[in-house]
Amino acid sequence: MQAVELIRKKRDGGTLSTGEINWLVEQYTKEQIPDYQMSAWLMAVYWRGMDARETSDLTLAMARSGEQLHVRDTISPVVDKHSTGGVGDKVTLAVAPLVAACGVAVGKMTGRGLGHTGGTVDKLESIHGFRSTLSSEEFMQILTRHHIVLAGQSSDLAPADGKMYALRDVTGTIESIPLIAASIMSKKLAIGASHLLLDVKVGSGAFMKTVERARELAQAMVDIGQLAGLHTVAAITAMDQPLGRAIGNALEMAEAIAILHGNGPQDVSELCYHEVAELLVMTGTADNMTPFRPTGRSQNEVRWRSEYQLTEAEKRVEQAVSSGAGVAKLAEVIAAQGGDPQQIEQPHLLPTAPVRSMLVAPRSGYIAGIQAEQMGLASMHLGAGRFKKGDPIDHRTGLVLQAKVGDYRKAGEPLVEVHARSESEAASIEDALLACYSWSDAPVDVGPLVYDTIRPTSS
Amino acid sequence: MQAVELIRKKRDGGTLSTGEINWLVEQYTKEQIPDYQMSAWLMAVYWRGMDARETSDLTLAMARSGEQLHVRDTISPVVDKHSTGGVGDKVTLAVAPLVAACGVAVGKMTGRGLGHTGGTVDKLESIHGFRSTLSSEEFMQILTRHHIVLAGQSSDLAPADGKMYALRDVTGTIESIPLIAASIMSKKLAIGASHLLLDVKVGSGAFMKTVERARELAQAMVDIGQLAGLHTVAAITAMDQPLGRAIGNALEMAEAIAILHGNGPQDVSELCYHEVAELLVMTGTADNMTPFRPTGRSQNEVRWRSEYQLTEAEKRVEQAVSSGAGVAKLAEVIAAQGGDPQQIEQPHLLPTAPVRSMLVAPRSGYIAGIQAEQMGLASMHLGAGRFKKGDPIDHRTGLVLQAKVGDYRKAGEPLVEVHARSESEAASIEDALLACYSWSDAPVDVGPLVYDTIRPTSS
Repeated sequence: MQAVELIRKKRDGGTLSTGEINWLVEQYTKEQIPDYQMSAWLMAVYWRGMDARETSDLTLAMARSGEQLHVRDTISPVVDKHSTGGVGDKVTLAVAPLVAACGVAVGKMTGRGLGHTGGTVDKLESIHGFRSTLSSEEFMQILTRHHIVLAGQSSDLAPADGKMYALRDVTGTIESIPLIAASIMSKKLAIGASHLLLDVKVGSGAFMKTVERARELAQAMVDIGQLAGLHTVAAITAMDQPLGRAIGNALEMAEAIAILHGNGPQDVSELCYHEVAELLVMTGTADNMTPFRPTGRSQNEVRWRSEYQLTEAEKRVEQAVSSGAGVAKLAEVIAAQGGDPQQIEQPHLLPTAPVRSMLVAPRSGYIAGIQAEQMGLASMHLGAGRFKKGDPIDHRTGLVLQAKVGDYRKAGEPLVEVHARSESEAASIEDALLACYSWSDAPVDVGPLVYDTIRPTSS
Repeated sequence: MQAVELIRKKRDGGTLSTGEINWLVEQYTKEQIPDYQMSAWLMAVYWRGMDARETSDLTLAMARSGEQLHVRDTISPVVDKHSTGGVGDKVTLAVAPLVAACGVAVGKMTGRGLGHTGGTVDKLESIHGFRSTLSSEEFMQILTRHHIVLAGQSSDLAPADGKMYALRDVTGTIESIPLIAASIMSKKLAIGASHLLLDVKVGSGAFMKTVERARELAQAMVDIGQLAGLHTVAAITAMDQPLGRAIGNALEMAEAIAILHGNGPQDVSELCYHEVAELLVMTGTADNMTPFRPTGRSQNEVRWRSEYQLTEAEKRVEQAVSSGAGVAKLAEVIAAQGGDPQQIEQPHLLPTAPVRSMLVAPRSGYIAGIQAEQMGLASMHLGAGRFKKGDPIDHRTGLVLQAKVGDYRKAGEPLVEVHARSESEAASIEDALLACYSWSDAPVDVGPLVYDTIRPTSS
């Protein structure tokens, strides 16, 4: 077999066989195929696409390119979840302990933030002493003992994906649905959970800008899961305005704790409880839930639990929240990974920024939009995010929204609280922050939080 | 500027500015842009194409990437010619000395053979002592003194093209019209002749398989010439059966000498004289010629000179042939480049293969087709060509067709003479040779030799 033949085949719109894809990934991992051939092939894939079988084959080949944990051989069911990334997305921090508190194991590896989107590992590292870098043995030990583990992504897993992603990043081949799907799913398959819930973000603050593209990506990943034997469900959820109110690492950690106590912001709390219920249903732990009914998200209190008949799954989630079992599980996993559980039990112990300044509404009116991506970038300028890989971050800084889309504010009322290292840094982003807001004189409709849920065709 | 931005721009169907293309080629030549980015860009170009201005900019940038000879600053007019390559194509060997004999300087660099197509340098090197590797100073000295020089392609000229061609070869991006056109024309622009005649071969034995593709390539190159200030004309000519009768290096050298004496095979002689006339007209050396009128090519004698009214250009060519000025010019340039001119004056001194065997017609009938590519491959197996770059070749071996398409042969009559190193090598290709022939019981029409001629729009 020759790499140039496989490049030509894809270039001409052909379909590669399983053997051809395996060979390509194996040889590339062994550096027997140089980057310049792989990048030409990736551009051909960008152009011609891949069918579901090719995409699944590529994903499996990348999953096999390094260590494989096979966690479901040790504990089953064991769930994994993944978000394609957004601004203020602290969902994993609440969902994972709630699922574990409901008796279902959660083995999760998670990434660092880059650009305007945050990373779960960075948020966890705002806890004093927390270790995200775990050996495979530690990962399995903590998972087995605590039914929950929250580790940083190991480069030993799916190294072909790491190599290909770095190449795609500099060769204009990132934005290909099958390649994105294969990249995400290869790492999931290498861990080897039994069930996976995907949160595909869509909107101005997400990588996918339209519901159609998000649905395409969600479908591609659900298809891979189905072909590769990983029960996968994908929710397509809104990322136009930031999720919840907090943006920034310790601030989001505190908000996650609030969600676990049942007093987090409505939108992000609803999303978390919905995802937990979905995972309980997926794993057969609780009965079928009724379809999620999006409600308005402009109120401060979480109302969904009193608004309609709860399913068994939803009751289980409510119990995990009201009993404190969820927050206790978060403290447990933090402690198991070297972190200080007191910071979970008493969130005022989380690191705080020296300067807090309140930005107020420059006019009266309904908030029509809050540009999530721009908010994320503003937060980066406070030190809460990374401009490039390896940049240090400041866990204390960030933003806390005082109002969300649909809310009415009078001129001079609080709009967003800036947590900064200095007055001057806080002041430096004020104009950019105000530019994130659009206003309306008439009441504003808030769109749905969950656009759609993609499930395997057979289920 | 970032390479990945230019990759994305082309990937999305955009048009690169002159500055962007210059930067890309300059940085790539300086190895500031790695192969893996260039190959992704080349695949994007393969997909999206380039417009005439982009193609011309790419060509000029490649031409500027190394040494430039600017030969027309020293001697003008000075012509160059180029064939896209075929089997039995010894046209340059006759055209260049005839043009020079007519008083127009010819400065030509030429390539080596690879695969089924031969290279002019290899044919010239069948002459004892001939040196194809010349310094720029030698090239200019010989050109100035003799008004003709036939050198091997210098890697100092258009090094960006050499680097990009090698990359395209292994990344499935060869078969792109703008990239092929830019590659050919960059080397021509680096030499800097005033006039260029291109012979774009089309047919089963050529790189371009259809007249449409050949016309596209011809047009792209004529456009580049026009935008870059090099007067370029492209003839689209047939390459279904081998050109002339000889295939193999010394054998083709001998045939070129016969063409210079006016007793070469009809098809290749007509093509040579036609190209010389075209160059004389292009350079304003002779009056407009009448359009070339293709005639049947199955006769042994060259008949065109008696068949229709000669133009001034054609008369000049005839004189250069009949006076012996053409063949004398070939002997002169051979001597100037260290070769033995006696081998031109007495072609029986050219190296000959130890074994000659005649393959005869296996049936009676009209020859309907002779697969040029397969004939070229058979000749490679005799040692006359290269399977890969750097392979040594045997200048003595090859094939001499005893009949061409349209000719009638009785079973047992001579079909093709094999010039081999051994009886066993000769025997080993007999089946492959016979498989090249298709037969007809009815007379066969021979298609045109010149399909079309593409000239600059303004002329």
